[in-house]
Amino acid sequence: MNKNVNIAIVGLGQVGIYLYNELKSKKREIEIKTGKNINIVAISAKNRNKKRRFKINKKIFYSNPLKIFKEKKIDILFESIGQSDGISKKIVEYALKKKVNVITPNKALIAKHGDKLAKLAEKNKVNLEFEASVAGGIPILRTIKEGLSTNKINKVYGILNGTTNYILSEMENSNETFEKVLQKAQKLGYAEPGNPKLDLNGFDAFAKIKILSALSFNTKISKNNCIMEGIENIKLQDIKIASQLGLRVKLLGIAEIVKNQLFETVHPCLVSKNSYIGNVNGVMNAVITEGRPVGESVLQGEGAGPGPTSSSLLSDLMSILLGNIKYPFGISSNKRKSIKPFNNNNYSNSLYLRFEVKDKQGVLSLITNRLSKFKISVKRIIQTPDKKNKKATIVIITHKTTEINVRNFLSIFKKNKNILKFPTLIRLYN
Amino acid sequence: MNKNVNIAIVGLGQVGIYLYNELKSKKREIEIKTGKNINIVAISAKNRNKKRRFKINKKIFYSNPLKIFKEKKIDILFESIGQSDGISKKIVEYALKKKVNVITPNKALIAKHGDKLAKLAEKNKVNLEFEASVAGGIPILRTIKEGLSTNKINKVYGILNGTTNYILSEMENSNETFEKVLQKAQKLGYAEPGNPKLDLNGFDAFAKIKILSALSFNTKISKNNCIMEGIENIKLQDIKIASQLGLRVKLLGIAEIVKNQLFETVHPCLVSKNSYIGNVNGVMNAVITEGRPVGESVLQGEGAGPGPTSSSLLSDLMSILLGNIKYPFGISSNKRKSIKPFNNNNYSNSLYLRFEVKDKQGVLSLITNRLSKFKISVKRIIQTPDKKNKKATIVIITHKTTEINVRNFLSIFKKNKNILKFPTLIRLYN
Repeated sequence: MNKNVNIAIVGLGQVGIYLYNELKSKKREIEIKTGKNINIVAISAKNRNKKRRFKINKKIFYSNPLKIFKEKKIDILFESIGQSDGISKKIVEYALKKKVNVITPNKALIAKHGDKLAKLAEKNKVNLEFEASVAGGIPILRTIKEGLSTNKINKVYGILNGTTNYILSEMENSNETFEKVLQKAQKLGYAEPGNPKLDLNGFDAFAKIKILSALSFNTKISKNNCIMEGIENIKLQDIKIASQLGLRVKLLGIAEIVKNQLFETVHPCLVSKNSYIGNVNGVMNAVITEGRPVGESVLQGEGAGPGPTSSSLLSDLMSILLGNIKYPFGISSNKRKSIKPFNNNNYSNSLYLRFEVKDKQGVLSLITNRLSKFKISVKRIIQTPDKKNKKATIVIITHKTTEINVRNFLSIFKKNKNILKFPTLIRLYN
Repeated sequence: MNKNVNIAIVGLGQVGIYLYNELKSKKREIEIKTGKNINIVAISAKNRNKKRRFKINKKIFYSNPLKIFKEKKIDILFESIGQSDGISKKIVEYALKKKVNVITPNKALIAKHGDKLAKLAEKNKVNLEFEASVAGGIPILRTIKEGLSTNKINKVYGILNGTTNYILSEMENSNETFEKVLQKAQKLGYAEPGNPKLDLNGFDAFAKIKILSALSFNTKISKNNCIMEGIENIKLQDIKIASQLGLRVKLLGIAEIVKNQLFETVHPCLVSKNSYIGNVNGVMNAVITEGRPVGESVLQGEGAGPGPTSSSLLSDLMSILLGNIKYPFGISSNKRKSIKPFNNNNYSNSLYLRFEVKDKQGVLSLITNRLSKFKISVKRIIQTPDKKNKKATIVIITHKTTEINVRNFLSIFKKNKNILKFPTLIRLYN
């Protein structure tokens, strides 16, 4: 790379615009640390005249990002549009083919097309860096790729989505409903104002767990059919009951090698209030790896927001400026294996089940009979009648049982007139 | 670097011998990841015939490590003797001058001579890596140097010594005295059997905080006169009283930029049982950085033992094999500044003070009068009489006050006949 390095930023949303400003204000510091003189020679976004947090130089503005490569020599591209396909994929592919280094916080793109893009980067001997795609400011990808590189990691899990973690914490703290707290999160900028669905339904965390999994186990990004559940069905009531039991609800992403098979999932978990993970609250993210010989490692930090994201984007930039060409996934693409998926049916947990039922004789025994039919043994039952409305809430904590058993157990409750709504299931994390 | 890389290991204690074995067992994996073929061509220790955990190849054994460089071409030296001076310093200097890359877990050496050695490495265009010197398996140095490289860090602190953290945790859990638990720690291999002094008196944590401080603030390693206290004076009694107050004793290392001045210290702190740091127990280490724009980052993991240490040594090896020559402290030595030390007298905390006194009238008022003389205001007093022995324990929790005030306040208690021993002071961490 020459002493003068030309940079393009495509996508000027919250992250892109913050990055633009950071690059300008840290230009001198970066030069001292790397000996490279960086220049932002092109920026691109859909709307040239949109009101933005920082002033932009309109002379270098492109409405069509592909045009940049025709008119300017670019060394490093920041892609911060954020689509899993479409223009994001197109521009990244185009850049890599043109031997341009790419840095992106786009987890959807990497989780879907990361294998193919990594190959393309390796073939063209450029870097594809995506530290910011997982857990904002926490340098977890670099830690797995470099810091823990000779360890055999067999499990990686954690709290990977700041929005949902904020909502769950705030419901507990403020005693307010999911809907109220979601509105608050949107006001504070923690949740997308328009469509927070990808955060709430677990998709965002899932894209991250796929990336972490591929890096930790040196495998291809899996296309397996996995258990993915979000927090949309968690009610304030569940959080209160959990609290009485010394538990707290957390949305966990988990990737693990079980009997040489790959298991990946995202779902709400009940964790002990005294556990480490039970005390990662608010918008914080935390990632825990278990490896040999290093043991358990924990990384915690702010998981979202333009500041932390920009910190990771700049660490990628520094790495490229210091002249290191690296494999995007730590090792050469052709050394990354595919491994067999673990059968989801055999995934096994203690369960929290909440039933809303008519307060009639025989309902509890209907439930317990069916539990015993599927060999699900009960640790605890808490029944709370609501005499006035002739209803009752029954919470059952079970011993460990498999997914297939639970699914079969739950299936009849869809059409039973005494069961007022389909039961709420939260798995206990052990 | 050639495809064939020659390695020497000097020092075959717990860490050295574990590393030797790991290098042999991971030879093939390292070749796949780096394309380099590593060979251990020389090993050295004082005693050739000592009984060791793994079998060594005596054909490559040297009693005099300096002789290695005369007889063999070495590319990378692992120094795992562990002295701050003497043969450790001599062999590292010698190697760097001969353009040999050096990897070491030796915090005493780096904390004392790191600046000079870094310069030597830079001059000879080789690497000096010491990830394993701080917090065992936690890749904290790499995280600061690379992952957080463009952040402005203003504080770094944490639990940096596994031995003392184990002792404090175990005293609380088992209700046993310092002396008993120390013996247990020695049996379990957590504390040096002969001389655990450097762990217990805070020196070990202090060497680590100096290294963290230099890396975080881009400064030279400080030679400042600092407050350094260990855990030797912490009694089971203090731990019990703290527990009643919802607090826990932790030995913290702290480095901070205060008003553009450098403050570094190691001392026991009382932290809330509900805080993150209050729940890092046993041999775990944790390092917390506060920076902009990234916010607070936490890294936690096993801080000692040959497994975690070896994990870090190998990450340094991988980095060198991948062909990156890096500044040992992240930036060029001549860019690292010295900054003014913060005046320790102005360091200010709430305090826990425990007095053992004769149960006589006037003793409490002696203490409280003197407190008010030095403008130390009291938050809480807990007096526990021991009628039988005509003694009493007085615990005072104060509001924030400065070190100079405390020192002056405490000075008279050295020679007062009603005060049975010099008061115990533990600072509250806010």
